[in-house]
Amino acid sequence: MGSRAFIAAAVSSALLLLALGLPNPAAAAPHLPWAAQSLRLSSLPSRAPAPAVGLSYETHYLVQQVDHFGFDVNLTFKQRYLITDQYWKNNNGAILFYTGNEGDITWFCKNTGFMWDVAEELKAMLVFAEHRYYGESLPFGNLSFSDSKHLNYLTSEQALADFAVLIEYLKKTIPGAKNSPVIAIGGSYGGMLAAWFRMKYPHIVIGALAASAPIWQFTDLVSCGKFFEIVTNDFKKSGSKCSETIQSSWKAIDRLTSTGEGLQWISEVFHLCNPLRSQIDAIMLKSWLAETWVNLAMVDYPYSSDFLMPLPAWPIKEVCKYLTDPSASDKILVQNIFRAVNIYYNYSGEASCLNTSQTATSNLGIQGWNYQACTEMVMPICTTGISDMFEPQEWDFAAYSEQCFQEWGVRPRPSWIPTVFGGKNISSHSNIIFSNGALDPWYAGGVNENITDTLVSIVIPDGAHHLDLCARNADDPESVLLARTMEVDYMKKWITQFQGHR
Amino acid sequence: MGSRAFIAAAVSSALLLLALGLPNPAAAAPHLPWAAQSLRLSSLPSRAPAPAVGLSYETHYLVQQVDHFGFDVNLTFKQRYLITDQYWKNNNGAILFYTGNEGDITWFCKNTGFMWDVAEELKAMLVFAEHRYYGESLPFGNLSFSDSKHLNYLTSEQALADFAVLIEYLKKTIPGAKNSPVIAIGGSYGGMLAAWFRMKYPHIVIGALAASAPIWQFTDLVSCGKFFEIVTNDFKKSGSKCSETIQSSWKAIDRLTSTGEGLQWISEVFHLCNPLRSQIDAIMLKSWLAETWVNLAMVDYPYSSDFLMPLPAWPIKEVCKYLTDPSASDKILVQNIFRAVNIYYNYSGEASCLNTSQTATSNLGIQGWNYQACTEMVMPICTTGISDMFEPQEWDFAAYSEQCFQEWGVRPRPSWIPTVFGGKNISSHSNIIFSNGALDPWYAGGVNENITDTLVSIVIPDGAHHLDLCARNADDPESVLLARTMEVDYMKKWITQFQGHR
Repeated sequence: MGSRAFIAAAVSSALLLLALGLPNPAAAAPHLPWAAQSLRLSSLPSRAPAPAVGLSYETHYLVQQVDHFGFDVNLTFKQRYLITDQYWKNNNGAILFYTGNEGDITWFCKNTGFMWDVAEELKAMLVFAEHRYYGESLPFGNLSFSDSKHLNYLTSEQALADFAVLIEYLKKTIPGAKNSPVIAIGGSYGGMLAAWFRMKYPHIVIGALAASAPIWQFTDLVSCGKFFEIVTNDFKKSGSKCSETIQSSWKAIDRLTSTGEGLQWISEVFHLCNPLRSQIDAIMLKSWLAETWVNLAMVDYPYSSDFLMPLPAWPIKEVCKYLTDPSASDKILVQNIFRAVNIYYNYSGEASCLNTSQTATSNLGIQGWNYQACTEMVMPICTTGISDMFEPQEWDFAAYSEQCFQEWGVRPRPSWIPTVFGGKNISSHSNIIFSNGALDPWYAGGVNENITDTLVSIVIPDGAHHLDLCARNADDPESVLLARTMEVDYMKKWITQFQGHR
Repeated sequence: MGSRAFIAAAVSSALLLLALGLPNPAAAAPHLPWAAQSLRLSSLPSRAPAPAVGLSYETHYLVQQVDHFGFDVNLTFKQRYLITDQYWKNNNGAILFYTGNEGDITWFCKNTGFMWDVAEELKAMLVFAEHRYYGESLPFGNLSFSDSKHLNYLTSEQALADFAVLIEYLKKTIPGAKNSPVIAIGGSYGGMLAAWFRMKYPHIVIGALAASAPIWQFTDLVSCGKFFEIVTNDFKKSGSKCSETIQSSWKAIDRLTSTGEGLQWISEVFHLCNPLRSQIDAIMLKSWLAETWVNLAMVDYPYSSDFLMPLPAWPIKEVCKYLTDPSASDKILVQNIFRAVNIYYNYSGEASCLNTSQTATSNLGIQGWNYQACTEMVMPICTTGISDMFEPQEWDFAAYSEQCFQEWGVRPRPSWIPTVFGGKNISSHSNIIFSNGALDPWYAGGVNENITDTLVSIVIPDGAHHLDLCARNADDPESVLLARTMEVDYMKKWITQFQGHR
């Protein structure tokens, strides 16, 4: 069975946003490499073969209100969703509903092997619903991202309302589905949506599997430093002196890039497609490196996998083989850093140069997520340089907000998500599984202890970013097999309870 | 102890909307007296003396987002709220939070005697929050009702978000309130909001008392005919031949108003401020009469009370004293009808003429509620003329929608409220008391059986519209005393549970 999709965080600083072609001038905050981070809970593209069970589905579209929460804009758009009933017991059998996140839904569909793997056992229909403003589900077509007016309907609440309306429509129109129990499943931001969907629409979904969902990575709920501490620990335990070598690299890069000659030398060593020309470019290089380490932490999977570039099993271990000497000279150290990142970007050896403007897949809606990070999804992240291997950077909300305003004309509202979704005070809800891999930086913002009997945590010690949603693999560690078994057991229990109450 | 506020439904047909000064031409649907009803869960003004406990409160304003669910409109407005801590135990003692409905909050504050009566026993702070677009809490000042663009933020979801933000603000800023348990209390539409608030924000309120809250008076949830059947039954049991006499009156009015002479005669009999001039005026008269019977059913209280005009105890019984002969001649019958409604409009004998354009208090935001009825609050009502004493009128959504579009430029979305708030499928929630008076027409759309151990129904057989929220009165029937005792017991239990969990 093939490997599957992976999801990686990309830390997009002001500079990275520029690099990604967004309008904000890097010069606005050249001294703030993390200042206006737009963290993406993003995913990397997979070229994994389809799971053995096959991926036959139908594509449909439902006409949805652009604005569920207001009546002045009475426009509609077409939401895409994918559906398969090949394993479904059409007498009110279960429906597994993927709450689509920030990307093309066909990509999530192909890369959530878990749902395909369990469909037969649960006799379940599978539905994958695309999130508005991603993939083909664009409320205003090409104009969707043109300005803050057109972007105004890109919120998690609107997305949840789309899901609710879609499920009611399916139950009404599919013969035999009227009383089907529906379970929400999602990973990463999709996992947040799955959990929130159960919280806000418990009449529509009987439970939710929220995989690697950092629902607490919001202001004042968790320490902003935990995220990069986890990244650091992943490197620390994957090779002797590994994290120390990365820690030493920042100053080495600073020293080397302080001269024109050094900029040129580094550009050559890194085989950069676009050579460094200034200090700002050097800051950008460091952001790109940091983002690479984060991505590696997210996809530190136990088997060889095939994403942006093919990766070996336990890639951080491979990377760390080059990162053993923090005391090497600046040039040797930087050459070793290159060898390390080259595993991530060029394991196949096919890349002719490295592009510091790209770290993630084009299947993801980068614009959309950046807007969301600038409005609702304010997830504070910081580094100390002491408990982590990165350059110290405080969380600077004022700079973040300013960046967002310049870029999108909107101001983030950091307290809104905790207000509307409950922050840490969610114990009155029920039937949510929060699964988190301990290797995953997003574990920092996850729910990692049982809250009640029915709000349960599953921690996967050997897991990176939602490994449990990946398709079965011969090299799966025991811990993820156990997690999946528990998840299926919970779902069966919810279904039995639901059917008992009817 | 004084009597208190009363709330009465006003059935605003197309014609009544015209009469109320709204722009829609009556001529658009002269044959449809109930066709485009905008039911108001409205309230009548009270001149009741303040309850014995006194009504000392402070008035404050909180800056709120005009749009909680979008970021393009980053405007704010001032929400008014009233607060008193004279009975509060300021070491995390309870807060009773009135979820303001469609009117001036000072009026609800004065007329929710129950909260004042129990404040001492519960050692509670009282907060009364004004609903946006009512009273002084106008998002765009005088322009708030100018068009559908300015009205766009008048929804129940926005109002609930205001309440959530306000409570978080109070807990953050009032010393000793940080861990206070908050209980939502409301009546009528305010009761719907209280219930929905607990459903959507259980992390903010530990429970809700939803008094006379017709949360099921929505499409496909209850029979549309039940509402007027209850009105009819109230008259049927309050006097021999009473409902039959009203039933006979419609055709009598038709026959009399078929001539110019008859129109003039009726105008004189009814002492109308504005004489009838056409068939349309006659239809309007009938709507006004129907609305009067509805209002009487809502305020059929056991003691004399003081609202639009002072009313005797059990006013329907008084009214029915004039309505004993359905077989009388048309003229006698209509004269008796006048005597009956005159009790409602002129018990004090001070009115020099009757105005068919007015049935309810100016404390209510009629414009606001009409807009809400034309967007989210679509509450189907119909009559058969068989199981009720009214002229038959089907529920005609198409006409309703057209009426709304002409009036406000918006289309109602009748399925949205059940989708977002769960319709009848609400059993996964907890800690909500649904109280309903069996005499109240809105009982038809209420929750009148326990759903679970913690979603409980209290039916008050002798109660009209949320009698339980009224101040204590010597003539209170046993059933309402029992209801209030149970309500306080539930609240104490929630508070104890909450404190036990902390």
